[in-house]
Amino acid sequence: MGFAQSSHRGGTGMDYGRFADDQVKAIRDVVGTGTAINALSGGVDSSVCTVLGHRALGERMKTFFVDNALMREGEPEQVVRTFADLGISVTLVDARREFLGALAGLTDPEQKRQAITDTFYAKVFSRLVRETGARYLIHGTILTDVEETVAGIKRQHNILAQLGIDPVKEYGYRVLEPLVTLRKDGVRGLAKAVGLPAAVADRMPFPGPALATRVVGEVTERRLATVRAATRIVEEELADTGAFQYLAVLLADRATGIRSGQREFGEIVVVRCIESRDAREATATRLPWEKLEALCRRITSIPGVNRCLYDLTPKPPATVEYI
Amino acid sequence: MGFAQSSHRGGTGMDYGRFADDQVKAIRDVVGTGTAINALSGGVDSSVCTVLGHRALGERMKTFFVDNALMREGEPEQVVRTFADLGISVTLVDARREFLGALAGLTDPEQKRQAITDTFYAKVFSRLVRETGARYLIHGTILTDVEETVAGIKRQHNILAQLGIDPVKEYGYRVLEPLVTLRKDGVRGLAKAVGLPAAVADRMPFPGPALATRVVGEVTERRLATVRAATRIVEEELADTGAFQYLAVLLADRATGIRSGQREFGEIVVVRCIESRDAREATATRLPWEKLEALCRRITSIPGVNRCLYDLTPKPPATVEYI
Repeated sequence: MGFAQSSHRGGTGMDYGRFADDQVKAIRDVVGTGTAINALSGGVDSSVCTVLGHRALGERMKTFFVDNALMREGEPEQVVRTFADLGISVTLVDARREFLGALAGLTDPEQKRQAITDTFYAKVFSRLVRETGARYLIHGTILTDVEETVAGIKRQHNILAQLGIDPVKEYGYRVLEPLVTLRKDGVRGLAKAVGLPAAVADRMPFPGPALATRVVGEVTERRLATVRAATRIVEEELADTGAFQYLAVLLADRATGIRSGQREFGEIVVVRCIESRDAREATATRLPWEKLEALCRRITSIPGVNRCLYDLTPKPPATVEYI
Repeated sequence: MGFAQSSHRGGTGMDYGRFADDQVKAIRDVVGTGTAINALSGGVDSSVCTVLGHRALGERMKTFFVDNALMREGEPEQVVRTFADLGISVTLVDARREFLGALAGLTDPEQKRQAITDTFYAKVFSRLVRETGARYLIHGTILTDVEETVAGIKRQHNILAQLGIDPVKEYGYRVLEPLVTLRKDGVRGLAKAVGLPAAVADRMPFPGPALATRVVGEVTERRLATVRAATRIVEEELADTGAFQYLAVLLADRATGIRSGQREFGEIVVVRCIESRDAREATATRLPWEKLEALCRRITSIPGVNRCLYDLTPKPPATVEYI
């Protein structure tokens, strides 16, 4: 159920200021004197929704950033600060225990994804919806999400159903999707037009299940700390490459090594760095050897890690992420 | 218990022909009219022992090549053919079922190594010793093996104990070690001097537990076929690099991919290629990107494999092998 009736598609020549004004007015018309809620992930889609919602509703727009324990180093605090600088108050919700509890013992990728989705919608976000009394949910669905759901690549994300809300029985709940006519480049243009900093507008893609997607096998606090440290190194080392996306993955397998003359059965980190236009196809970046060796040196100095591998595989046959 | 009393160390100026003659004479003196046995792996150490033993004893030297199901493509047949060309008859023993049975269900690296060692010594080779009536075992121990055992890096390999033979109770068993005073370069020099082809004399190091060392997780016939195909590709593609050693490893982890539009949870192959003088320290070879991409293309065309990674890690902190 689209919200943005005007059907702009982004691209050259589009008047993003006008588009933003249209969406702000539409949100205001629909919500009236009610309360709306949204979950901010820090990605460009939910960031733009946050700005549009606050412009339309002010204090009646309730924005939450859920710390699911799967974020990158300093990410929750940084997202909240970015919006504070724009005069928008974001509530940081510490749900780390709930997510880690739901993930404990799971190694199957689908079960892990499901546990994260269920914890987010059925536990954390549905509680926030009840507590705020919000009957309007603003969601950053974009056109590509709709297309990929139709094509069977993404799973159906009916938010109300995921929250356990039956929109027929519980009259009044409504999902607003102000970006549903745009593709990613349109959202990025809109982000700049509404005053979001370039760090948000041009942010590298980062998956919804966050670092859980970067941990093969069980997701534990200790393993998250390892992949978080590797992620920081990869982002620091590869920021100047102009690559489309770069990331670190912690494998479940271990390999033998030697540390201080002792045999060690250590962890394995994979570095992935890709060139792509739209993430539908991708090739591995031909990084200079000095850069690869610097990455390896820093990553194998993370406690417990004694291997660093570089992913050579294009998409297809590989995907960008591992799970 | 060393056998080569003359204590040559190889190196420049050494008279390998004289050394070989000395060892042949010593074997003949010790074995007399008895029968000796040895296991040929195809590596340079056991190959030289085979030639020396046959020169000394002729038909009373029984050489067996045990096919443990863990060999590279065509390796058993090729080793037998190489020696046939030298006029030496090697008996090929098909022990594939016994090794695969012993490895079934094992994922722990130490348990896998132990299963291979036990199957080889306690089952297969001890049976051959009994059947041949041999009381003399010729073994390709080299000086580095002795040093590494003393240093605690390698495990003690007392062959008679591993065969379940108590040399005191069962009087007459004796292990001959004609190469025990040499290092690898000395053995390679000796190999050429006794007429072994360069493919054997200069053969790249290959571990005793063979492809089992290249399979992380359970070793099955299907997984061996995958790593065997990857090994052939790596050896073909990297033969012209002059690298010290190159190999393919099949991980137990899997990663998502897309094949013919379908989501696929595929296997991961790691390519390792190193520069080294003596395997004690090593660095990853800076392969050209064209070569890495060709490797990736061929390896991801192996059924079920959708990722190809390149190992960047020096030794230390990594070892050359994974398990």
